[in-house]
Amino acid sequence: MYLSKRTTVLSQNQSKLINALQVKKYRQKYRNFLVEGEKMVLELLQQQRFGVVSIFGLERWAAANAASLQPFLQNFNPVSEIELRKISGLSTPNSVLAIAQWPDTWPDGSLLQSDICLYLDGIQDPGNLGTILRIADWFGFPAVFCSPDCVDVFSPKVVQATMGAVFRVPTCEIALPELLAPLSPAPPVMGAVLGGSDIFRSTLPANGLLVIGNEGRGISPATEQLLSHRLTIPRHAAGGAESLNAAVATGIMAAVLRNQTFTT
Amino acid sequence: MYLSKRTTVLSQNQSKLINALQVKKYRQKYRNFLVEGEKMVLELLQQQRFGVVSIFGLERWAAANAASLQPFLQNFNPVSEIELRKISGLSTPNSVLAIAQWPDTWPDGSLLQSDICLYLDGIQDPGNLGTILRIADWFGFPAVFCSPDCVDVFSPKVVQATMGAVFRVPTCEIALPELLAPLSPAPPVMGAVLGGSDIFRSTLPANGLLVIGNEGRGISPATEQLLSHRLTIPRHAAGGAESLNAAVATGIMAAVLRNQTFTT
Repeated sequence: MYLSKRTTVLSQNQSKLINALQVKKYRQKYRNFLVEGEKMVLELLQQQRFGVVSIFGLERWAAANAASLQPFLQNFNPVSEIELRKISGLSTPNSVLAIAQWPDTWPDGSLLQSDICLYLDGIQDPGNLGTILRIADWFGFPAVFCSPDCVDVFSPKVVQATMGAVFRVPTCEIALPELLAPLSPAPPVMGAVLGGSDIFRSTLPANGLLVIGNEGRGISPATEQLLSHRLTIPRHAAGGAESLNAAVATGIMAAVLRNQTFTT
Repeated sequence: MYLSKRTTVLSQNQSKLINALQVKKYRQKYRNFLVEGEKMVLELLQQQRFGVVSIFGLERWAAANAASLQPFLQNFNPVSEIELRKISGLSTPNSVLAIAQWPDTWPDGSLLQSDICLYLDGIQDPGNLGTILRIADWFGFPAVFCSPDCVDVFSPKVVQATMGAVFRVPTCEIALPELLAPLSPAPPVMGAVLGGSDIFRSTLPANGLLVIGNEGRGISPATEQLLSHRLTIPRHAAGGAESLNAAVATGIMAAVLRNQTFTT
C-alpha cells in the first residue's frame, strides 16, 4: 500500500535537471534521460537494465501503482498537476515522469558473430528511430547500433516512440568502422540499397549487421563501401513510389531475415 | 519561359478558402484540398487525376519551374514570402502551395476481384496513413479504402506524409459492409490480428482485401467478423514488443503478399 507523502514543491535543482535532460549534451553529462507517461514509467520500474533516479508523479498515480512503486519509494516525489505540467515535455501531460540512468554496459560487435543486429546510418526522425527499436524488439534482434549522426535514442521523443522497446533492446552509439574493426572473421554487413539483390530471392546470412540508411539520402557512400550484401525490397511492376519509409523498409527486411528459412 | 506577373495581394476570399481547407468539413463542401511544397506541387501538376484550382508561389519558384507551370499559368498567383507564410500550414513554409480538386470518380470494390486492395479500419495517425499510401504505391495496390473513422486522406498532414503517393493511389472513404455488399463472389478479406495464421507459412489469396486495424485497438470487432483470413506476423521467440507500428505491419504484409509465389 502506498502511504501518502506530502506533495512536494520541486526544488530549483530538480526542475533545472529535468529541463536540461531535453538536451543531448546534458543527457550525456549526467548519463540520465527522461521517461514520461504511465505505461512507460511502469516499464522502467519493471526492468533491470536502467537505474531509476527519480519519479515525479501525481498522488493518484502512486496510489494506483503502489506495488510497482514500492521498491522505489525513496525516489518518489509526489507533485501536483500544475507542477507536472511545468516539467512535462508532452502536450497533454500524463500523470508521471521519471529520470532514468544510463546502463554501465553497452552492447558490442561480438553479438554480430552469432545473431543479426541493426545499424542505423543517420536516422533523423525520432518517430522512425522509435519505431525501428520496436521492430528490433518484436523480431528479437539483440542490439541496435546507431551512427553518431542519428537522432539520440534517449531524446524524449524517441523514448516515447519506442513504446517501451528502449528498455528491452540494448543500443549503442558508435561509428561503423569502429564497430567492425575488432571483429574477426569480419561479419556479413547487409544494407538496403537501390539496385541490390532482391531480398525475397536471396540466400541471406544468419548473422551480421543489417544497415538502414538515412530517410532522405539512404546509406552514406562511406558506409556503402563496407557492405558485403547489397539488398533491395523489390518494387511491384505497377508501383510508383520513389522509396519506402525507413522504418517500413526496416520492418520488411527484419521480417524476411527472421523468416527466411521458409523462403529459400 | 515564365513571364513575371505582378505579385498579387491575396484576396480575402482566397485566404479564407485556404484556411477553411485545413478542416475536413470544408474540404468536403468545396471538394478541394491543399498541397504544399515544391516536390508535392510538381507532382500535382504532372498528374491527371486531380484538377488544379490555384497555385500560390514565389516568383523564383515560378521562374525555376516554368515548363511545369506553363499549362496552369492562369491558375498561378505569385505571392510574397510574407503572404505565403500567412497561408502555409508548414512550420517552415516552402515556396509554393496549391489548391487541388477532388476527382469525379472513386475506386470501387470491383478491383478486389482481380487484385489486392487495402482497407484501413480506423487509422488515426496522419503519418501512418501517409506512410501506408506510400506502401500501397510501392507495392502497386490499385486502391486504398478507408473507414469513415480514419483520419481524412486529404488533410494537409496526410497529404504531406504520402510523399506524392496520394496522387497515384486512388482512395475512397467507405464502410466495409458497403464496400463488400455488391461483390459476388465475395472476395477474400484478410486481416492482421493476434493469434492468426503465420503470414510466412500460409497460402495467401491473389485477390481481395487486406484490412489494417487502428493503432491502439487493432481491427474493430464488427470488422473482424468479416475476415475470411486471420493473419499474424510472427513475433520472434526472443522478441518483447507488444505490437508493431500499423504502417510497419502493413509494409510487411504487403511485401509478403506481393512476393508470396516465392515463399510457398
